[in-house]
Amino acid sequence: MPNIIQRIGSNKTSVQQLYDSISSTTGLSNWWTKDVSGESKIGSVIQFRFSKGGPDFEVIDMQNLKRVEWKCVQGPKEWIDTHIEFDILNEQDEIILLFKHSGWREEVEFMHHCSTQWAYFLIGLRRFLETGEETPYGKNFEPISNWSK
Amino acid sequence: MPNIIQRIGSNKTSVQQLYDSISSTTGLSNWWTKDVSGESKIGSVIQFRFSKGGPDFEVIDMQNLKRVEWKCVQGPKEWIDTHIEFDILNEQDEIILLFKHSGWREEVEFMHHCSTQWAYFLIGLRRFLETGEETPYGKNFEPISNWSK
Repeated sequence: MPNIIQRIGSNKTSVQQLYDSISSTTGLSNWWTKDVSGESKIGSVIQFRFSKGGPDFEVIDMQNLKRVEWKCVQGPKEWIDTHIEFDILNEQDEIILLFKHSGWREEVEFMHHCSTQWAYFLIGLRRFLETGEETPYGKNFEPISNWSK
Repeated sequence: MPNIIQRIGSNKTSVQQLYDSISSTTGLSNWWTKDVSGESKIGSVIQFRFSKGGPDFEVIDMQNLKRVEWKCVQGPKEWIDTHIEFDILNEQDEIILLFKHSGWREEVEFMHHCSTQWAYFLIGLRRFLETGEETPYGKNFEPISNWSK
């Protein structure tokens, strides 16, 4: 099954700061969408909202300072049962975030869109970690097409 | 084989302007890298250069105002024989660019990087089409990790 995969890195952040950005609802609101609710702990569900709704993810794995994995339990039909995986690598010259949105059934046009949109948000996460500037959905957001709006 | 897929859209451009951006070396230099040489016509090779080298693509398809396809004939070993496909869709409310970098052998970490890096460039292309602002490699470029530098 096709996956969306991404990678960013920074030498102006810490593993703790990066982990907070993917493991806490406040951290997630800094770069993905301002409208986050629910609890970020294993077995709980986090709700992310955009103009036309948005996905709910069940948290299925959290390893402190290392990784977070979610399963989509509600949202766009193409997303149901897909997984989001965040893995942190603490390398010599910088801290890396590997991202995977796995379990897509087909490479539909919406998957093309989501790939670029995830990259937009992750590039925004890197910029936030380095400068504090926020560009998530709901705050200084730059759309990539009408599907972003 | 895994693919990198992307999608951007704009209602502030024309099909001609978008096609010029993917089919002419000047157009490509506005959003990918300032260092482009060679000829953009079927059977010719275009050279794209970054700090540590870069790929050469043979142009294998050009359909006016519709699509461009290249095959990688030199560059990073993971890219050799992969294809780049640009397809333009003229939809009612905006003009869409679908992108595919196909034929990867494995989802290696470099593929994660290239996925986010392609998205960076394509988001830059959209911004260029809408505002004239250029952010390719070599001009106001924002790295996504040390691998971008």
